[in-house]
Amino acid sequence: MSDSAQNLSGVVPPLVTPLTTEYDVDTASLARLVAHQLAGGVRGVFVLGTSGEGTFLTDEQRQTVLETVVSEVSGQVPVLAGAIDTSTARAGAHVAAALKAGVDAVVATAPFYAATHPAEIERHYTRLASVAGETPMFAYDIPSRISGTKLPSALMIDLGRRGVLAGVKDSSGQETSLRRLVLDRAAAGLEGFAIMTGSEVTVDSALNFGVDGVVPGLGNVDPAGYVRIFDAVAAGDLAAARREQDRLFRLFEIVEVADRARMGHSSGALGAFKAALFLLGVIASPLTAYPSIPLDDDEIRRIGSLLERAGLR
Amino acid sequence: MSDSAQNLSGVVPPLVTPLTTEYDVDTASLARLVAHQLAGGVRGVFVLGTSGEGTFLTDEQRQTVLETVVSEVSGQVPVLAGAIDTSTARAGAHVAAALKAGVDAVVATAPFYAATHPAEIERHYTRLASVAGETPMFAYDIPSRISGTKLPSALMIDLGRRGVLAGVKDSSGQETSLRRLVLDRAAAGLEGFAIMTGSEVTVDSALNFGVDGVVPGLGNVDPAGYVRIFDAVAAGDLAAARREQDRLFRLFEIVEVADRARMGHSSGALGAFKAALFLLGVIASPLTAYPSIPLDDDEIRRIGSLLERAGLR
Amino acid sequence: MSDSAQNLSGVVPPLVTPLTTEYDVDTASLARLVAHQLAGGVRGVFVLGTSGEGTFLTDEQRQTVLETVVSEVSGQVPVLAGAIDTSTARAGAHVAAALKAGVDAVVATAPFYAATHPAEIERHYTRLASVAGETPMFAYDIPSRISGTKLPSALMIDLGRRGVLAGVKDSSGQETSLRRLVLDRAAAGLEGFAIMTGSEVTVDSALNFGVDGVVPGLGNVDPAGYVRIFDAVAAGDLAAARREQDRLFRLFEIVEVADRARMGHSSGALGAFKAALFLLGVIASPLTAYPSIPLDDDEIRRIGSLLERAGLR
Amino acid sequence: MSDSAQNLSGVVPPLVTPLTTEYDVDTASLARLVAHQLAGGVRGVFVLGTSGEGTFLTDEQRQTVLETVVSEVSGQVPVLAGAIDTSTARAGAHVAAALKAGVDAVVATAPFYAATHPAEIERHYTRLASVAGETPMFAYDIPSRISGTKLPSALMIDLGRRGVLAGVKDSSGQETSLRRLVLDRAAAGLEGFAIMTGSEVTVDSALNFGVDGVVPGLGNVDPAGYVRIFDAVAAGDLAAARREQDRLFRLFEIVEVADRARMGHSSGALGAFKAALFLLGVIASPLTAYPSIPLDDDEIRRIGSLLERAGLR
Repeated sequence: MSDSAQNLSGVVPPLVTPLTTEYDVDTASLARLVAHQLAGGVRGVFVLGTSGEGTFLTDEQRQTVLETVVSEVSGQVPVLAGAIDTSTARAGAHVAAALKAGVDAVVATAPFYAATHPAEIERHYTRLASVAGETPMFAYDIPSRISGTKLPSALMIDLGRRGVLAGVKDSSGQETSLRRLVLDRAAAGLEGFAIMTGSEVTVDSALNFGVDGVVPGLGNVDPAGYVRIFDAVAAGDLAAARREQDRLFRLFEIVEVADRARMGHSSGALGAFKAALFLLGVIASPLTAYPSIPLDDDEIRRIGSLLERAGLR
Repeated sequence: MSDSAQNLSGVVPPLVTPLTTEYDVDTASLARLVAHQLAGGVRGVFVLGTSGEGTFLTDEQRQTVLETVVSEVSGQVPVLAGAIDTSTARAGAHVAAALKAGVDAVVATAPFYAATHPAEIERHYTRLASVAGETPMFAYDIPSRISGTKLPSALMIDLGRRGVLAGVKDSSGQETSLRRLVLDRAAAGLEGFAIMTGSEVTVDSALNFGVDGVVPGLGNVDPAGYVRIFDAVAAGDLAAARREQDRLFRLFEIVEVADRARMGHSSGALGAFKAALFLLGVIASPLTAYPSIPLDDDEIRRIGSLLERAGLR
Repeated sequence: MSDSAQNLSGVVPPLVTPLTTEYDVDTASLARLVAHQLAGGVRGVFVLGTSGEGTFLTDEQRQTVLETVVSEVSGQVPVLAGAIDTSTARAGAHVAAALKAGVDAVVATAPFYAATHPAEIERHYTRLASVAGETPMFAYDIPSRISGTKLPSALMIDLGRRGVLAGVKDSSGQETSLRRLVLDRAAAGLEGFAIMTGSEVTVDSALNFGVDGVVPGLGNVDPAGYVRIFDAVAAGDLAAARREQDRLFRLFEIVEVADRARMGHSSGALGAFKAALFLLGVIASPLTAYPSIPLDDDEIRRIGSLLERAGLR
Repeated sequence: MSDSAQNLSGVVPPLVTPLTTEYDVDTASLARLVAHQLAGGVRGVFVLGTSGEGTFLTDEQRQTVLETVVSEVSGQVPVLAGAIDTSTARAGAHVAAALKAGVDAVVATAPFYAATHPAEIERHYTRLASVAGETPMFAYDIPSRISGTKLPSALMIDLGRRGVLAGVKDSSGQETSLRRLVLDRAAAGLEGFAIMTGSEVTVDSALNFGVDGVVPGLGNVDPAGYVRIFDAVAAGDLAAARREQDRLFRLFEIVEVADRARMGHSSGALGAFKAALFLLGVIASPLTAYPSIPLDDDEIRRIGSLLERAGLR
């Protein structure tokens, strides 16, 4: 266990999983991606999350990702691993595998496919915590992916108080509920319960109202930009934070480049992150996991233009 | 491969997975459930679907279910197995395991968690078909569980024409799109492409407008009732079919008995099916998969009253 | 008041409101539309509903529609009038105006814009009934237009029992809830409470499970087709009913002709009904209410082809 | 026309409409409410909006509200009036009535009930602008009330550039789209196009990323609190702004006091604002418009406690 995973803060990008053209994990590219992140000043990395296409990978591929990243990070920052699956039993197996690979924390959604009640989500996390043992566990709130299931603030705080959860990663896109969580944490006097936003585009605001850090998919591409936002807010320079956020807001338009008439929103967004990393020379191929449709050359070229506009090339 | 799986029709209930109080698969209860179905006159059974809590089970538990049911059914009717998972790779592993266990057909949803485009769903099924080989594969259309992804009629028909799909199980609850699929099939002259509804409550209508069969969760409890609807429609006696459907419509109120303030809709519905089978002496425990909240004694008692009202006790 | 409005059944199309190219009500076209309906064998007509673009019209234009239709129908069948507005006070004014114009029944939605609770909807209808007096009132259930507000079956039955409502027009598209309403009516022994479906495409099914009649927008174009479905079901010839419904299902594809990239779904559907009536020589212009975008010549031509395919030209 | 309405900024509360126990407009209470606002330092008032229950009122009642407020405000700040109705023709009549009463600006939603396409919304606003003439018009973006219709950023900017719109009131609750609108305005070099948020709970953030002002329903109760947020952000004191926002975030919990089992969300929220103003002695009755269910004595008492906790009593 790492102290810094227990009191997580700062920029913790959710790493994409670089793939070879044969759809294997490209460990050399993944190593370069880790180096790119550490050079950018991140406080942690999160693997096998939504951006990591964790739900697409086989158990063997997941193992490769875990081992590669734990080895490359080599203790410099905490490594968090996603445990995203349909049931407690299946997520528990992911937690166990991640622990064995030496990660510093795990990040678990509620069960999905079958809709669950908060009382069932409570049972889910309590059971997972017994698997995780001393390793901190974060709840992952991402209703858009799991048929609308939203993690209630009161449950999160209660699980924090009982030591089941070390914090929450909020990818709900609901600023009001995120702010309520921050206020509820303060009202509960809950020290050391980390609240991280998964937003790419409201980070300065979120940090200013009390969120501890950010897990931005776009941070794969420009970790240093998000670190500048974090540092500016910490220094009380909201104007500088806003300028940087505004630049990254525009850079985030890369996720809209892909033609929605021929591929999904998810493929288009992840394909954009990977295309940008490919153009920056960090990873060897922009391929996304099967059955995602890949971006075409023209789309990749337009992403290049947006990188230039953002000052990254 | 079974010819009858290739031209599926009639009543094919999605079997629940009976559990012991230690959350293991209760194979003796499962064997009795299979006997209950065969006695009811079903034309097939579907395991590891939504009613089967397939997404909750470990691979070992899934294997136990497959082997038990294949063995108990012993070729009297086709056995269909669910391959419901977040990605093509994961669903493909379920298809392979089901084939090895000797099932007659597989039933696969689109990928989920990550939203997918029809072009990606096409890739998904094409790849799964290459795993399934000669074994028929059905698409499972259940948008409520997979963040709203609806399988387009045109894609289904095209995949049917190309031999990728042997049919569709429609649990969308959208009667209009189901009827369009029936008309599109006729327009395409697509012989032997089975269209099954997952509805419990509009079966007489669906059969009358051209659907081939039904996969009703409530069929676990009263398979003979659904067989009576099917036979009545086949005999052109719509009034008799409606009377039976109306009785089963009211019996389906068992899914509303559970207190929604303390458990999920899904747990409540599956708990009701299991409670009814428990009260009928078919299975030994009404327990649903972890982390589902179980029904309490009073709720089980009220389900008993509804069984009596429906003439089942 | 008309007895037949009290026990409504059969085909009761929701009349479109023909407009001149200056966006005035085209009373000559409206008179021809009434004649077209009566020739088709309808049992009633419904003005100022969704198809009638009632929410677009000024009070003066509404008055013109009411007077023209009451005069043209001349007591041959009941005339129903929509009272669709955001509040009880506003809907009440529409009820009063319709009564003054001599209609036989009114049809009112729940309030909208501000979301309402069933207890508030109960107050709404009770107040409107005091305005309507002896004139029968129907509830209009159309959640897609009013931010998802669905009229609960239990409330409808209760208001029927108390004489507040004479029935329900169900445009929810939810076959299961419609069937529940039919069964709840039977359980309550509620004689003379009319249940009408607003569906164009599931009419044979709905009539077969106990619905009394249909209010199909497409009935503007082909009232005789819907009358044939009704008569076939009444005669117990479900196969003939299905054939006719299947033909009208395909004809309903006219609502998908308009280019969704340049106009709304609603404009496209109403524009299609009006274009078809224009091509059939019933109305003088296919124009829809401002600010709706009109169909272009090519779209109108394609609607003509679909009319031919359906045997109407 | 007022210059300040042309370049609107600051706190502009959407006034509730006080009612007598006979459901008439209580002009004496309304006058006191205006005085309460002016004493709080607001930069404008907005009547006949969502908080003003404008869609519930008759034309006569609307006239009374307009005349009373214009007279009481007496030119000290701009008066904005809602023109919220189902169609262009109906909204246009509201615009004309408001102009005649002497308001300084109008605020109009897209048409609703019938869903509309952006090209139709463009026609809607263009036509309304021809009615409004020199009087500034703001678009009101409130998708939750109008079946999900969201005003596109590109259309808003285009209508601003053409002089059709003087700005937007954003009650979408979508922080990302609001921020995009701010950035799009800057990219277009669109001076004097006001962007106001309708949020009660993210005001410090929104002002900090470039929004010009706020139209908070809770501002009825505590206008001075919102003015303090605005002044603190203007002075660059984000910490002070956050403290005030956090206090008002908690005060906003008054909208959750009403029992959702017996009344609607909307009634409960508006009833809470009115109950608070009643307890503060500003208005004579907490009654909301018919058919809304009123809060009971216990609920009003609990709202009193929350007022005390927020330092208002």
